[in-house]
Amino acid sequence: MKTIVVRNFERADGSVVKRLGALGTSTVHEAYGRFGLMKPYLRPAWAGGEAAGTAVTVLAHPGDNWMIHVAVEQCRPGDILVVGCSAANTDGMFGDLLATSLMARGVKGLIIDAGARDAKALREMGFPVWSKAISAKGTVKAALGAVNVPVVCAGVNVIPGDAVIADDDGVVVVRPKDAAEVVAKGEKRYADEEGKRKQLAAGVLGLDMYNMREALKKAGLVYVDEPESD
Amino acid sequence: MKTIVVRNFERADGSVVKRLGALGTSTVHEAYGRFGLMKPYLRPAWAGGEAAGTAVTVLAHPGDNWMIHVAVEQCRPGDILVVGCSAANTDGMFGDLLATSLMARGVKGLIIDAGARDAKALREMGFPVWSKAISAKGTVKAALGAVNVPVVCAGVNVIPGDAVIADDDGVVVVRPKDAAEVVAKGEKRYADEEGKRKQLAAGVLGLDMYNMREALKKAGLVYVDEPESD
Amino acid sequence: MKTIVVRNFERADGSVVKRLGALGTSTVHEAYGRFGLMKPYLRPAWAGGEAAGTAVTVLAHPGDNWMIHVAVEQCRPGDILVVGCSAANTDGMFGDLLATSLMARGVKGLIIDAGARDAKALREMGFPVWSKAISAKGTVKAALGAVNVPVVCAGVNVIPGDAVIADDDGVVVVRPKDAAEVVAKGEKRYADEEGKRKQLAAGVLGLDMYNMREALKKAGLVYVDEPESD
Amino acid sequence: MKTIVVRNFERADGSVVKRLGALGTSTVHEAYGRFGLMKPYLRPAWAGGEAAGTAVTVLAHPGDNWMIHVAVEQCRPGDILVVGCSAANTDGMFGDLLATSLMARGVKGLIIDAGARDAKALREMGFPVWSKAISAKGTVKAALGAVNVPVVCAGVNVIPGDAVIADDDGVVVVRPKDAAEVVAKGEKRYADEEGKRKQLAAGVLGLDMYNMREALKKAGLVYVDEPESD
Amino acid sequence: MKTIVVRNFERADGSVVKRLGALGTSTVHEAYGRFGLMKPYLRPAWAGGEAAGTAVTVLAHPGDNWMIHVAVEQCRPGDILVVGCSAANTDGMFGDLLATSLMARGVKGLIIDAGARDAKALREMGFPVWSKAISAKGTVKAALGAVNVPVVCAGVNVIPGDAVIADDDGVVVVRPKDAAEVVAKGEKRYADEEGKRKQLAAGVLGLDMYNMREALKKAGLVYVDEPESD
Amino acid sequence: MKTIVVRNFERADGSVVKRLGALGTSTVHEAYGRFGLMKPYLRPAWAGGEAAGTAVTVLAHPGDNWMIHVAVEQCRPGDILVVGCSAANTDGMFGDLLATSLMARGVKGLIIDAGARDAKALREMGFPVWSKAISAKGTVKAALGAVNVPVVCAGVNVIPGDAVIADDDGVVVVRPKDAAEVVAKGEKRYADEEGKRKQLAAGVLGLDMYNMREALKKAGLVYVDEPESD
Repeated sequence: MKTIVVRNFERADGSVVKRLGALGTSTVHEAYGRFGLMKPYLRPAWAGGEAAGTAVTVLAHPGDNWMIHVAVEQCRPGDILVVGCSAANTDGMFGDLLATSLMARGVKGLIIDAGARDAKALREMGFPVWSKAISAKGTVKAALGAVNVPVVCAGVNVIPGDAVIADDDGVVVVRPKDAAEVVAKGEKRYADEEGKRKQLAAGVLGLDMYNMREALKKAGLVYVDEPESD
Repeated sequence: MKTIVVRNFERADGSVVKRLGALGTSTVHEAYGRFGLMKPYLRPAWAGGEAAGTAVTVLAHPGDNWMIHVAVEQCRPGDILVVGCSAANTDGMFGDLLATSLMARGVKGLIIDAGARDAKALREMGFPVWSKAISAKGTVKAALGAVNVPVVCAGVNVIPGDAVIADDDGVVVVRPKDAAEVVAKGEKRYADEEGKRKQLAAGVLGLDMYNMREALKKAGLVYVDEPESD
Repeated sequence: MKTIVVRNFERADGSVVKRLGALGTSTVHEAYGRFGLMKPYLRPAWAGGEAAGTAVTVLAHPGDNWMIHVAVEQCRPGDILVVGCSAANTDGMFGDLLATSLMARGVKGLIIDAGARDAKALREMGFPVWSKAISAKGTVKAALGAVNVPVVCAGVNVIPGDAVIADDDGVVVVRPKDAAEVVAKGEKRYADEEGKRKQLAAGVLGLDMYNMREALKKAGLVYVDEPESD
Repeated sequence: MKTIVVRNFERADGSVVKRLGALGTSTVHEAYGRFGLMKPYLRPAWAGGEAAGTAVTVLAHPGDNWMIHVAVEQCRPGDILVVGCSAANTDGMFGDLLATSLMARGVKGLIIDAGARDAKALREMGFPVWSKAISAKGTVKAALGAVNVPVVCAGVNVIPGDAVIADDDGVVVVRPKDAAEVVAKGEKRYADEEGKRKQLAAGVLGLDMYNMREALKKAGLVYVDEPESD
Repeated sequence: MKTIVVRNFERADGSVVKRLGALGTSTVHEAYGRFGLMKPYLRPAWAGGEAAGTAVTVLAHPGDNWMIHVAVEQCRPGDILVVGCSAANTDGMFGDLLATSLMARGVKGLIIDAGARDAKALREMGFPVWSKAISAKGTVKAALGAVNVPVVCAGVNVIPGDAVIADDDGVVVVRPKDAAEVVAKGEKRYADEEGKRKQLAAGVLGLDMYNMREALKKAGLVYVDEPESD
Repeated sequence: MKTIVVRNFERADGSVVKRLGALGTSTVHEAYGRFGLMKPYLRPAWAGGEAAGTAVTVLAHPGDNWMIHVAVEQCRPGDILVVGCSAANTDGMFGDLLATSLMARGVKGLIIDAGARDAKALREMGFPVWSKAISAKGTVKAALGAVNVPVVCAGVNVIPGDAVIADDDGVVVVRPKDAAEVVAKGEKRYADEEGKRKQLAAGVLGLDMYNMREALKKAGLVYVDEPESD
């Protein structure tokens, strides 16, 4: 493991990332074959925050945010900072000063497999953060990690330049080479859902709309009129 | 374990359920002898949601929401859908399409011992959900479970037709045969609390209002003027 | 372990406590050498609540809130009630009636290493609570504990009279004898942060503002232009 | 919820229970349609313990083992004591004295959705226990619960008289009316496994033994000779 | 919080500590009024290990074991090293080299509110360790903490010189000034238990031996002959 | 995400893997710059198991072990099977039949980010398994995943052919291109430790052996003779 900062890498196409963001994590994750989703222990610091961007990655040690400071310089407008940690940690490795710095560079949000702090200020600034914990616990600046190498964050391997979509339902990561296909499938799925939503609101049953009755019968489902005695 | 759908069963009386709902989970749970409360890991998808209804139950396998689709058809106005799972799971087995369908049928809310998704849409629709996690993780429709059999949900055995009361403090379940007695005890308790609240707000101590001083003394409580050295 | 209530003890200076509260938990915790912070599993019952006060402490047994009732009488305006528990517990040991009583006595908030209930009422009353869980689970009044002895709460040993600062980022505890020094350091830190915030917002990099480049180079950080093959 | 002790109930047939025990939890659970398994947080107090018996049930409050003492009298040779708890708890509600008493009555083991203690003595006595935690934390004898009513234990609703099978892989519960069918299916499965084990040990692939290749192809599995670039 | 090493302090009497150790954690904890027990997430690195000694304490930062090295010098024969951590951590802060050093100084064991490593070697050396996790994760030696100041470890405030008793059931801490009284009560309890164990083994019921029947009846317990319908 | 099976890939050199195995996870992890370690929630199914081999990887869906059956065919003597899961899961996806099959092919062990079952049989067969849980919960064979693509397992991205070292302290993964350097550093470290162990056993302090006194003094550590009053 080299302690390096990688300056250049391919980023997912900005317009595709924007369209993925419009779909939201649930649709993107489905369109991606149900892969790429971070573990649900990652939660938004404030409800309603949404972000879509390209990953700048940080590999940090627990309780040490030195590499986050290094990473800021590598960020461009439209990026999202993704921080993995070499061991489980909930310390508040990110707060309002770093958020101010990232906003000044046009960064869309932060995903961190550790803790964040200054929750109130982040909410008031409107800077969206997804983290494992909120904690005032401060950090040191002592150990080198790396910037823009692949990092595992909340169970997903993130490669610099990946498309990252985050909202109230979680965080999903899409490889640049797959992004166009996922957007196409996702937009089709999304369009289909509008029609379905209307039917369901009108009282049509999913059982009929999705033609499930035959398959259920074949699988052995039986309707009975009364509860069995236990 | 039969893979069945039970069509008919006795539901708790609607007017009693409404009165239980007005009392809230804390009062109902106390009036029920401190039983019937689901584990506190079940949390509302949005703060302030409240629901009271009669249980339609689903036994599902992890990551598989086929049986929820089946259950929708069995729901009537005033019901609450309660989903148990055959193993621990946090996948997003329920989202805004199913919520739309349930609202169209007059269902009051969803309780699920697994994950839910589309958190933002659920909040905007005002459909209350209590779940173990929020997760975009999608599901399959592959394995049969059952509808309207007894299911364990967050530590409580729920029988179809049970009264289910849910709010910010959790979810409590009352058997139909016990509901009238619980409502009576709960309303008495509630009425008593109003008077107590006024006294306490006026500065009366609970120690005096509840006549605790004698019992505390008898149990051995001692008042001292200064801290002991450790 | 004696089952006692201590009536008198030294409280941290009220004006110093107020100044600590204005700094917030993150700054106070840093100024205190990164000690004194409770575990981050303690969460506010409602977002945005803030409290600063002097500790009145309770040692309770799980599922038993008798000692909290006893403690109310020992509270003075400006206090914060801190409840430790002799074993892990999430029962709702504190609710709106006790909150009403504490507010009537000028108490600033509650910190409890167990559960609280009546979450909605607490939010509406504006009484701030930090707890391990929200749960409707009721309690008994059966076992003696102690009031105003040192108690461990969420990993911190709290001594009656300690300054307690709580906000969205957590809860931090400062010994009275250290409070003046912490306030001085914290206010200096806070003032410095204002200037830093402005620089960062203007696009200055933390790398330059904090003069990190030399130390990073010395520690062995290397900048490369392209990703390595894995 | 009545605070009662039920004296008589139907127990699962002893010889069937013995045959279920010989199959082990994995086989029984499979033969039961993958239902009836307690949550895996329940762990044996010592590795290698095994028990099969009929359920005597206890509903207890956290940190209170009074009802366990009451339940001992209701146990017969061949029973297993199953303890559910009205709220999450890890206190050591069961130890070597109670184990001595149960062994004297021919009880086969204990399943408890809370903590146990005297782990070393239990291991030396050879009395098998499955619990959520090992903890020296003592209990009171203060609140009534019930004996031989249905109780939820680690996510499963247990009815007095149910067959309970426990080993290193967990705890599974079978209703008496289903036990004969489960034993028949399980013994067939077990016999089949012996032949499969021999084939697999001889190097036959499961892919061939289970005829999976066709289904995998149909589902879309593709074999490639080289890794794709990421 | 000063970063100091305290050289001298009062230790609990060695012969009393030995007698406490002979009683075991469950009995000591009961005799101490059910206080002083560490949280049950602390587990022995190997089953069967037992230790009784006087506390030398360490306050460390997560992932940093510098202070443990400092503390070794302060240990005397009969001590137990107790390590608290300023934030939640599972890194392997202690391994076989440190164990070798402690054994050379006559130290009886290690209690750490973080991770340990070299589990196999510790087992083979017979050096008992209680920790929150086993993890190979290495540590740095970068940040100062303190030695022989009060530290919170797994929920208990430990003061240098305290008696520490640890076995398969957990870890309990007794203040030196209370130790003689606890030993006396504990030995009485222990002697009583021997007689009770014999009676129970002979088939006497706890209900009769403890004279519980009257109290149960008074509390409202009812015996019924048949299960109620649900 | 393609549902593919990759047949050929570069494996880490067998003799280097063997030498890494002889060093153990703690030393390898240190020599690798403290990276590559899986999360400590992965635990051995039986104490004392050790394995070193080259990774064959499986990406599976929760509760579905179809892809494990597919992967067996791709295993060669000296491999270790590493199973990642698309969502959190504790079901028993691996048992004694699969272990029999893997042993017949010379596979050294299994690492699974989910549950395993047949714990007793695995121990008796001597087949080492590291898993997140032990659970009898059975699985289906319904959904395609992939074999020999990069998978995230317990927080580490594993690439087919990686060296995998596992023992009581956890699981560490080393890239083939880094393996020779890690082995060299690790063996040097190991040799150094032997000498240190002897010195420490003879009573030399780590403070002196590692020359820490100067650095501690410089960092501000102060020795005092008596405890401060709190």
